[in-house]
Amino acid sequence: MEKKYYLGIDLGGTNIKLGVIDQFGKIIAKLEAATPQGDYQKTLNLFVELAGQTGISLDELISVGIGVPGFVNVEDGSIASLVNVGWENVQLKADMEKKFSLPVYVDNDANLAALGEMWQGAGKGVSNLVCVTIGTGVGSGVIINAQIHHGKNAMAGEIGHLPINPRSTYRCNCGKYGCLETEVSATAMINHVKKALEEGRESLLTRDLTAKEIFMAAEQKDRLALEIIDNAAHYLGLALAQITTALAPDKIVIGGGVSKAQELLLQPIRRYFQEFSTFRLAEQTELVLAELGNDAGIIGAGLLAKTGEET
Amino acid sequence: MEKKYYLGIDLGGTNIKLGVIDQFGKIIAKLEAATPQGDYQKTLNLFVELAGQTGISLDELISVGIGVPGFVNVEDGSIASLVNVGWENVQLKADMEKKFSLPVYVDNDANLAALGEMWQGAGKGVSNLVCVTIGTGVGSGVIINAQIHHGKNAMAGEIGHLPINPRSTYRCNCGKYGCLETEVSATAMINHVKKALEEGRESLLTRDLTAKEIFMAAEQKDRLALEIIDNAAHYLGLALAQITTALAPDKIVIGGGVSKAQELLLQPIRRYFQEFSTFRLAEQTELVLAELGNDAGIIGAGLLAKTGEET
Repeated sequence: MEKKYYLGIDLGGTNIKLGVIDQFGKIIAKLEAATPQGDYQKTLNLFVELAGQTGISLDELISVGIGVPGFVNVEDGSIASLVNVGWENVQLKADMEKKFSLPVYVDNDANLAALGEMWQGAGKGVSNLVCVTIGTGVGSGVIINAQIHHGKNAMAGEIGHLPINPRSTYRCNCGKYGCLETEVSATAMINHVKKALEEGRESLLTRDLTAKEIFMAAEQKDRLALEIIDNAAHYLGLALAQITTALAPDKIVIGGGVSKAQELLLQPIRRYFQEFSTFRLAEQTELVLAELGNDAGIIGAGLLAKTGEET
Repeated sequence: MEKKYYLGIDLGGTNIKLGVIDQFGKIIAKLEAATPQGDYQKTLNLFVELAGQTGISLDELISVGIGVPGFVNVEDGSIASLVNVGWENVQLKADMEKKFSLPVYVDNDANLAALGEMWQGAGKGVSNLVCVTIGTGVGSGVIINAQIHHGKNAMAGEIGHLPINPRSTYRCNCGKYGCLETEVSATAMINHVKKALEEGRESLLTRDLTAKEIFMAAEQKDRLALEIIDNAAHYLGLALAQITTALAPDKIVIGGGVSKAQELLLQPIRRYFQEFSTFRLAEQTELVLAELGNDAGIIGAGLLAKTGEET
């Protein structure tokens, strides 16, 4: 059989997404399954099992790409620790290559989402972009010359820890105060609402809430909800203006769960970005919403697999 | 004669530096001359004249690299405007290629200083670095995978306009408030001292002063001078911590006139960088002083000329 497809896997803390991608970036088949917790071998076997269920024979695959939620040693595809999945010190690339008898390429999930958006989504046609993911936390993938920029120890793109408000009293998981993640993530927005409610602020919102509810309350002109969204947009707009002075990306793509709020979030981010950016950068830098949703990861993994075989 | 050298030119607003560079990055000969103001043809002729005075025949040159103080169209080596030198709409690459009958490569001076430091200076051995230049203004060159990262419209590295203190009352040349340049440059430090003196602060410093005098006063424990240096270090440390979350460079190199203050400036910058950076980035990122001084530009221009011929 002719080898013409790539297998793209997006390993999340909750779900595995797996897709067969053709050379043009189109998804031929896709599947989803729950992530087995703390069982490495079982997870590898599940990858093979799911691949077998796509209707495409393994003989038709050229290579495999996989994105994982954490740091990857990009030299050898090993992983020191993957807290969300319960893995420690695994040789993911080597082990998967044995299982699949195919070349395997491993990278971080935010990086692959960025690659995916560049190939088939909001970043189509450009080769320098920053793709920000706002969900429980804040991450990003930095693409330069159409390639993932990893930086030292693959730490590039860790903008969740950009020190945006060092005088803040919100402590980040990393131990520092005022990281971008403490102002902009879903978790942060929920924490800010809770604190305001404790301080006696009136709102449609209650202490038991989700980020989605904050945006729903904002649509009903709830003042607290509008303030919390404005605060998040302010700090994200500022952070993106700062990053843009260094990188001057062609585009900034905003994705992740929180970006489902679409224009309700994007409009104030754009406004603050414009306010804080020096004129030429404000003028030339496009801020857009991600387009691929949950498929970004598997499409990006497909491109990683494709590029790996071409270079 | 065997072609084995590169000509590197660093065009400044005040002086032209010109050097013959060998394939290992060593300077074989160098010369300096005043920059003719507003006379493009005269300047091109001066380049050829100076090259003739190096003792190396043009026949021994493989190619020419030149750095200019402003934006370059890196596609065709043309320049829309070079305020410091009084040029407008010049085809620098094409015109120099005619004059020299050699391939010519043009880039921005801060980018070439960064390349120079990577090849022969403080960035030797690494391929991802940010090289910050602190002088009258603040600029930087961003090197990724051993190449200059230009970004959209060659605007990458414009960290002088990083919005570091948007609530500030100091207005930048660009029209915005609180750009990094309004806190960290020599001009900024002088302005801050002047304002404090107007407000009645006591100091060894007088209103007629240079950045060098601020550092001299600091060595004598002048409180105002120490405060102004601490303020500059604070904002530069914060800005570098922010940029580092996006790029994770191997090294950050600090050069330019103000960096002559050496440890007096570098120590507090390092301290603030450490304070603001998430732990892994604080740990892994080296902040060092530039090593090549005024030679960085011509050595970088030499590498640009060399790389241009090899790719």
